[in-house]
Amino acid sequence: MSDTLREWRLAERPHGEPDADCFELRERDVPEPDANELLIRVNYLSVDPYMRGRMRDTESYAEPWAVGDVLKGGIVGEVTKSESDRYDAGDLVTGRGTWGDYSVMDADDVVPVDPTIADLPAYLGVLGMPGRTAYFGLLNVGDPKPGDTVVVSGAAGAVGSVVGQIAKLNGCRVVGFAGTAEKTEWLTEDLGFDAAINYKATDDYGAALAEAAPDGVDVYFDNVGGPITDAVFTKLNLDARVAVCGQIAHYNDEDMPTGPRKLPLLIATRATVEGLLVHDYATRFGEARDRLTTWVADGDIRHRETVVDGLEQAPDAFMGLFSGDNIGKQVVRVSTPSS
Amino acid sequence: MSDTLREWRLAERPHGEPDADCFELRERDVPEPDANELLIRVNYLSVDPYMRGRMRDTESYAEPWAVGDVLKGGIVGEVTKSESDRYDAGDLVTGRGTWGDYSVMDADDVVPVDPTIADLPAYLGVLGMPGRTAYFGLLNVGDPKPGDTVVVSGAAGAVGSVVGQIAKLNGCRVVGFAGTAEKTEWLTEDLGFDAAINYKATDDYGAALAEAAPDGVDVYFDNVGGPITDAVFTKLNLDARVAVCGQIAHYNDEDMPTGPRKLPLLIATRATVEGLLVHDYATRFGEARDRLTTWVADGDIRHRETVVDGLEQAPDAFMGLFSGDNIGKQVVRVSTPSS
Repeated sequence: MSDTLREWRLAERPHGEPDADCFELRERDVPEPDANELLIRVNYLSVDPYMRGRMRDTESYAEPWAVGDVLKGGIVGEVTKSESDRYDAGDLVTGRGTWGDYSVMDADDVVPVDPTIADLPAYLGVLGMPGRTAYFGLLNVGDPKPGDTVVVSGAAGAVGSVVGQIAKLNGCRVVGFAGTAEKTEWLTEDLGFDAAINYKATDDYGAALAEAAPDGVDVYFDNVGGPITDAVFTKLNLDARVAVCGQIAHYNDEDMPTGPRKLPLLIATRATVEGLLVHDYATRFGEARDRLTTWVADGDIRHRETVVDGLEQAPDAFMGLFSGDNIGKQVVRVSTPSS
Repeated sequence: MSDTLREWRLAERPHGEPDADCFELRERDVPEPDANELLIRVNYLSVDPYMRGRMRDTESYAEPWAVGDVLKGGIVGEVTKSESDRYDAGDLVTGRGTWGDYSVMDADDVVPVDPTIADLPAYLGVLGMPGRTAYFGLLNVGDPKPGDTVVVSGAAGAVGSVVGQIAKLNGCRVVGFAGTAEKTEWLTEDLGFDAAINYKATDDYGAALAEAAPDGVDVYFDNVGGPITDAVFTKLNLDARVAVCGQIAHYNDEDMPTGPRKLPLLIATRATVEGLLVHDYATRFGEARDRLTTWVADGDIRHRETVVDGLEQAPDAFMGLFSGDNIGKQVVRVSTPSS
């Protein structure tokens, strides 16, 4: 073990699209864990679109990061020093850590990882926060019924790819929007989506949707916002449900974005549009973990991770989320597990 | 009884704001009621914003009116000929009739009216469809809790004025938006609203709302849309509920209106936005009728109607809804009850 670690800090707040100037890699001594804490060598680090919100200087559901703060996010890693009876050096765990070579975390804030069920990166995707977001968002907010048509934007992302597969397990017709032919092929060929629309290959999302979802849209799981969402809203069925999980098209907007007004469309359809945050379901995370683990172990849900190598690549991996570089979950490999 | 009646037909579809050319008054012979039908002399006729939607050539929750169709709407009137055992000539009834001197209606489609509880026009407002809309929309979609702040747009209209008073009965702080000083004074002085904002007397709806609703907005009952709604959405509290009842600001738009995008605001608040149509609650209309009748009889809910005289004024009364001419329910007096 080296005596120093590297970790990424917020150097300045982004204006519009984040760039390299927003991030600063600093070294410091590896800290010692206090009572009940673990020193964890980070193997994989998660970058997620929601982190863009924490870079803003506005209070939201989470405190904004201060300039100078170490960036935080989901990690999978190996315990190297334990001050807890429940974990030993060598144990693999996951939880919310830091963008660094090492993270000190409270033993209460991590859960064990079983690499025989899925590779470590999956614990940041389908078996991590994105998978739980898909699970609760689709089932609780979307409330899909067999035969419903479920449309997902950002369908080839970490959340969307799981949403579509859970919808298929619930007997729905599933249509995904994604931004490359490789992504749409993955959705229909490997994940069982009934149709996928490459939105970069068509100008007329409404026409593409009319073909892919001829019976209209009963559930829309929105990760994206913008013109895709505008088109979907014009196809909502009676009593449709819209789960607003993400709006990545707008995260880098400096001013309030404008677009077609949607409320007039809700009266005739009596559709429900609801914002969604996975932390509201924290008391039920065990349920989601069990179900998703079973589905993954049984091959009912497939997953994919896009891995970039090296902690120094973390900002690029994060910024790549906004141009859709990832298929499935985007992670950063910080180190190789020792075992 | 005259041998002929006058009735308004749709002469042409409006483009943008309806004008007199859209309406045609024709005469025809007074028809005879068939079995189980009633011939009703119309005393009061309701004009409502939703009728603008039926003038469009697009399918919505109701069939569009065809050019040449007699215009339909709520009426209160007196039975002059009955082919039903349940009603006699002279009985006062209400139901969905026509914009005419007489309406032939099925006896199953009317309910009796008791003029000792409220004057006849109230049966087209607080004790009619608008009152029921307020009742179900606020209680079922808005779901107000004591201490909640409830904001109503179009607050001095037929629906909004009842929404605010039911919210007060539920222990809420109530703030209304209306378009004249006379209206806001009615809301705060007579109806018990905690605050009312004359949106024509301020440029900054957000600032006005911050003052009137310092604890933010838990329930928003929207009859209007447009910039008022834009401002309210920026003040929604965690788990806020928005009932989209009407969007009168947009009913005359020919093209899809644009405005600030609202979905990004829903994630942090986890707010729910739901379209509302009173007909979905048809099986529970008796409950609403009983409750509203009691509240009106006890003086817990006050009401007001704006009455114009003469069937020939019906199109003007309808068009006046879009400029906010009415306080409370807008009705047209077609004839005077005989008793």
